[in-house]
Amino acid sequence: MSSTEVKLSRLLGLAQKFNNFYLTGFHKDDIRPFLVGGQQVGLIKADVYKQLLKFPEVFCIRDCQYTKQGLVELNPAFRDYNERTVHLDEVLRNLRSDGSFSALKGWRDECFEVKFEHKALLKMERAATPLFGVRKYGVDINGYVRHPQHGLCIWLQQRSNTKETWPGKWDNMVGGGLSVGFGIMETAVKEAAEEASIPKDLVKNLVSAGCVSFFFESDQGLFPNTEYVFDLELPVDFVPQNADGEVQAFELLPANECVERVFTPDFKTTSAPVVIDFLIRHGYITAENEINFTEIVELLHVPLQSLYTYKTRLEQKLQQHQSTLPKDDNNCNCDSVPKRPLENGHNKKDGA
Amino acid sequence: MSSTEVKLSRLLGLAQKFNNFYLTGFHKDDIRPFLVGGQQVGLIKADVYKQLLKFPEVFCIRDCQYTKQGLVELNPAFRDYNERTVHLDEVLRNLRSDGSFSALKGWRDECFEVKFEHKALLKMERAATPLFGVRKYGVDINGYVRHPQHGLCIWLQQRSNTKETWPGKWDNMVGGGLSVGFGIMETAVKEAAEEASIPKDLVKNLVSAGCVSFFFESDQGLFPNTEYVFDLELPVDFVPQNADGEVQAFELLPANECVERVFTPDFKTTSAPVVIDFLIRHGYITAENEINFTEIVELLHVPLQSLYTYKTRLEQKLQQHQSTLPKDDNNCNCDSVPKRPLENGHNKKDGA
Repeated sequence: MSSTEVKLSRLLGLAQKFNNFYLTGFHKDDIRPFLVGGQQVGLIKADVYKQLLKFPEVFCIRDCQYTKQGLVELNPAFRDYNERTVHLDEVLRNLRSDGSFSALKGWRDECFEVKFEHKALLKMERAATPLFGVRKYGVDINGYVRHPQHGLCIWLQQRSNTKETWPGKWDNMVGGGLSVGFGIMETAVKEAAEEASIPKDLVKNLVSAGCVSFFFESDQGLFPNTEYVFDLELPVDFVPQNADGEVQAFELLPANECVERVFTPDFKTTSAPVVIDFLIRHGYITAENEINFTEIVELLHVPLQSLYTYKTRLEQKLQQHQSTLPKDDNNCNCDSVPKRPLENGHNKKDGA
Repeated sequence: MSSTEVKLSRLLGLAQKFNNFYLTGFHKDDIRPFLVGGQQVGLIKADVYKQLLKFPEVFCIRDCQYTKQGLVELNPAFRDYNERTVHLDEVLRNLRSDGSFSALKGWRDECFEVKFEHKALLKMERAATPLFGVRKYGVDINGYVRHPQHGLCIWLQQRSNTKETWPGKWDNMVGGGLSVGFGIMETAVKEAAEEASIPKDLVKNLVSAGCVSFFFESDQGLFPNTEYVFDLELPVDFVPQNADGEVQAFELLPANECVERVFTPDFKTTSAPVVIDFLIRHGYITAENEINFTEIVELLHVPLQSLYTYKTRLEQKLQQHQSTLPKDDNNCNCDSVPKRPLENGHNKKDGA
């Protein structure tokens, strides 16, 4: 390779693919912050908020006069977790029944808790989170073996053909989303038992090894995902067995074959970051053998937190305007939630 | 801790400290891209480019009419690596002798190669790189021991009191910047021998484990640093010995004491990311014991590549303007480098 012609590596291409929204989608489209309780908890694309216009009693869709940005806000008159949850659920069931979004065809009757800075704001059907661009958290276990003949080997699972998402695709040995009421390590241990029958005396060797963050977009919606990553070294003779019907096969692959598998269309795109991160941390993918090493490491940890900062930007604008504002001016051009801003940018007492 | 009062953890505070420029400095000041050969290789603060105005034959300081951004450009008439290197070196020696910048008091007579996408553009005295906000690359080795009594323990070095930068501070066991002509693994092995007398039969166990990226600012200038990280498990009875006079002590600390040391003012701020990353990868700092875990992991891998994208932004603007431009218009309002843009935004043939 000449010094002027730098070839885009396959790994960088893949890292760009699972960050397609972070790298390009985010700048192209009319993407609006989704606010709950005055905090930005999501990002909503035009195709979604156009459907939400049908529910003006639940969503306030407006432009903020200070940030000049279009917003989608869950009605700030909903005072608490339960009230928000009930009203949102009603809308989602409505959208599901009229078939507006393919994402809702995968309805699970399983809830994901929407939080802001560790404060729970509402819970939402898991299948709907991509429509609202809500940050999702999950756990993944890299099951691996130091094989006397084949060196570093990695267990992969093949997802069941009946799964709602990515049916039949290859995936990490164990993985699952965080659901309401379960901790991170607790979820890892639970999934290890359900998906791969990992016994207690092995699962005690789980090592927390960080997290990966990326922002993927598919026709299902937006996936601003953070996966908490665990490593589990397994004995050479251990074979995972599925217990919950969600896995149709397991396979142990030497590291080089594992990389090739990840590049095939048979691998779940949003699980690739976990495998790549594992192979980097264990010295298989290095700065010496991968020309785009630093770019790839950055794309395994994209700054999702910086994309959910509407309130901070609003506060900066308000500080700039504060001294020049007449006392009784509206600070918001949304008819339903008028008057001076409280900490969330709206006056709840006067709100719709 | 209540769910509404989220305490800023000490670790997050430290991660914000070594990213002070990324998080706040970048938005506050008049920061200008530094262009060499039409590519952005650095970021220059106002105090520096005001000094560079004294050298109009070497630096073109102007506003780009398309991006509306102030720029500092190394004279595009310098055609190659050597010509750029010689002219820049002359300016730096001049600035050094008149004492304009404290960074240049640490002059080393050791060069750092400035590259863009793996293409070498020039070399620059190492001490000067913070003035130009050039991305710096280094290697760090986490020397650790699995101690039968004390568990995970980490070797730290105390820097010599005579070092130009961070004298007397605690630091990772082995670390060093990449210099012209040395590879990444090669630098790690060389520094392991020089700084800690790691013998060949131990250094062969070095494991590449990724990299950390952060953007720190001090009174010396800007530090957009990427450190290639290596782990080295050492026998319980091995004791590092310095061989080059740059280290005054080594100490083996249990993980909990190592964390406390990192929080003290006696620890080199720009080495903290490597220790924190190590403790995260090895399961000592986890999502369960650190409330700001995901934010900290993101701040260990900030997207430096996105801060050096002047050319991409220029190309986007030019595409927007292209159809509306009269054929003979200047595309740049800099008198010394007029006429239509080539791939680097300037017409080199007509340039000053």
